[in-house]
Amino acid sequence: MASDTKSKKVLEDFGNKIVDQIKKGKNPQIEMSLRNLSNIVYDTKDKILKLGNKMSSREFFNVAHSKKFLQTVEVASVIKNELLSSGKHSSLRDVFYMVKRTIPGTNVNLVDDQTESDKAIEDLEVITDFSREQLHVAANKMGSVAGKVIIEDKGDTIDWSRMGSGGWSIPSITDELIFKKVNAKYVLYMEKAAVFERLNEDKFWEKNDCIIISSQGQTTRGIRRLLQRLYEEYKLPIYVLTDNDVYGFYIYSVIKYGSIALAHASERLTIPGVKFIGITGDDVLKYDLKKHYIKLDEKDYSRIKQVSEYAWFKDNKDWQRQFKLMKDAGAKVEIQSLTSKGISFISESYLPEKIKKKEFLE
Amino acid sequence: MASDTKSKKVLEDFGNKIVDQIKKGKNPQIEMSLRNLSNIVYDTKDKILKLGNKMSSREFFNVAHSKKFLQTVEVASVIKNELLSSGKHSSLRDVFYMVKRTIPGTNVNLVDDQTESDKAIEDLEVITDFSREQLHVAANKMGSVAGKVIIEDKGDTIDWSRMGSGGWSIPSITDELIFKKVNAKYVLYMEKAAVFERLNEDKFWEKNDCIIISSQGQTTRGIRRLLQRLYEEYKLPIYVLTDNDVYGFYIYSVIKYGSIALAHASERLTIPGVKFIGITGDDVLKYDLKKHYIKLDEKDYSRIKQVSEYAWFKDNKDWQRQFKLMKDAGAKVEIQSLTSKGISFISESYLPEKIKKKEFLE
Repeated sequence: MASDTKSKKVLEDFGNKIVDQIKKGKNPQIEMSLRNLSNIVYDTKDKILKLGNKMSSREFFNVAHSKKFLQTVEVASVIKNELLSSGKHSSLRDVFYMVKRTIPGTNVNLVDDQTESDKAIEDLEVITDFSREQLHVAANKMGSVAGKVIIEDKGDTIDWSRMGSGGWSIPSITDELIFKKVNAKYVLYMEKAAVFERLNEDKFWEKNDCIIISSQGQTTRGIRRLLQRLYEEYKLPIYVLTDNDVYGFYIYSVIKYGSIALAHASERLTIPGVKFIGITGDDVLKYDLKKHYIKLDEKDYSRIKQVSEYAWFKDNKDWQRQFKLMKDAGAKVEIQSLTSKGISFISESYLPEKIKKKEFLE
Repeated sequence: MASDTKSKKVLEDFGNKIVDQIKKGKNPQIEMSLRNLSNIVYDTKDKILKLGNKMSSREFFNVAHSKKFLQTVEVASVIKNELLSSGKHSSLRDVFYMVKRTIPGTNVNLVDDQTESDKAIEDLEVITDFSREQLHVAANKMGSVAGKVIIEDKGDTIDWSRMGSGGWSIPSITDELIFKKVNAKYVLYMEKAAVFERLNEDKFWEKNDCIIISSQGQTTRGIRRLLQRLYEEYKLPIYVLTDNDVYGFYIYSVIKYGSIALAHASERLTIPGVKFIGITGDDVLKYDLKKHYIKLDEKDYSRIKQVSEYAWFKDNKDWQRQFKLMKDAGAKVEIQSLTSKGISFISESYLPEKIKKKEFLE
């Protein structure tokens, strides 16, 4: 990959800069954007969470910094020499084990806990401006995809419309997939694998010229990047389908605006144009799903308060209405309650109607 | 599917028998094997957990039985009319919503909680001797597979050796897959998706003529059935690769002997010949993984006690030795700690060596 050559070069430059400082007898230091809450801002123009302008500096001859300094340099070395040079990829957990060792002549481990190597990797994302995936480090893989799309990956040509009842299993890194043919009007992303199986069995993607993608619960970075690429490279609308609960709303929120933990990666992961297709509080009334209400508990209420106060939701009338509908009902509703109206109601009525009438929340 | 015709017939017979009882003025009743702990036995000959000979009876005119009676009949009706007749499949959650409604003329819901419809489905597995999958009801889908295998599924021909970095996404129901070509010496099943990605990137399945399968955490019924079919239909050895901890041992235990919750389905899901490849306590010593020890906590110790006393482990010297090694070390070790010896140590050294030397636990 061309980007591998570039990222190797950037990491080499990073190392050479430190060597130069040492040769000049200076205290080696690493500069990067500050990555704590005080420097995470909601960019109202781009409509994403991102890092502000504050910088932080890490020095080797500073008792409070030296261990983190070493961790960052060691992780950079592992990424360059073990991953980028071999073309191999690894998980966050693997990097932790590759870095974990006792510093010679001491009883001190370079890292004791995975959060330390994870932080160092995030630092390197900020320092190099390459994503974790471009540095060959992945999170867990999860999720399936089906649709009239042909891709090329690791020399294999893969037709997402010929994957039977399973679908193609989405890898943790989707940056390197090559799209050969994309025949779709939109992408439908759902939080539940069971809903994917329903839509796949009904050949929803074939009948409606779309791509269906599911995870199970949270959206992996591999899926977020895949959605983003389809949105940017093929201008496909992305519709998000979740339960009518605050956790579903949050899944949409993260895909669209980013998350605090990954604010530094927002530009590489968020999709400002994504739309929420349902289940909305209005759907619950229209499709007579009130009998499938599940009572909210304390945790739900406090999460609703928290999410509804996010910068991008707090002045959004449509979303505030949704939060109010949910609080007034004192209840949430699952996607699968639509099954009570017929096993294929979701693929034959609910989704086609909502898409035809453009009933989306933004 | 031929089995759909048979299962429909069995459900029809089930319904007709009840109608006959009603016509004869009898109290309608359903008979089936008792499914509680008192009737779950470890069959030392077949080496699986199964139901004993005790029977239970459920009567309509019995205040303690009538609701469960109705639930069983209603779920049978939904399965026959909504699923088997249409050829469609659904999740346990979907069945719950299809059955959930108020009994006319009352304020009583037929089911209030999914556990009720789940139990009714398990009853029907026992009554009809068809698996939940054969009755078109699935659990969640999870996991990926790669290898030199060609299957046919829903009219698509799928080559598991041409799936790029993702693999084929395993559906929740694998009973209906048709194997067209199976070119493998064994199957390697692992609990972690990240390990699958490592082995897949290294083309381990190609270099070693095997099939690699992963889930994430617990093994789904779809994967268990897939492993069993490869074991029975192609006589392939199955090797299980997990962390060196009691939860990993339990994953192996369930695949091999079954679980209490699904004792009635043991014969359809367990694989008596499955072998445990690692990580063993001996591997930890041999491969110098002691520095990656993770301390056991109270929960680990109590789970070790529980699992080590299972009927099939308690007289097994090799396994008792493993439990003892773990307790003596007071620590567990993850698969990924092998990465500390090199990113591809697992695929180039650890696994090939263990398989060549036949270092398995049974």
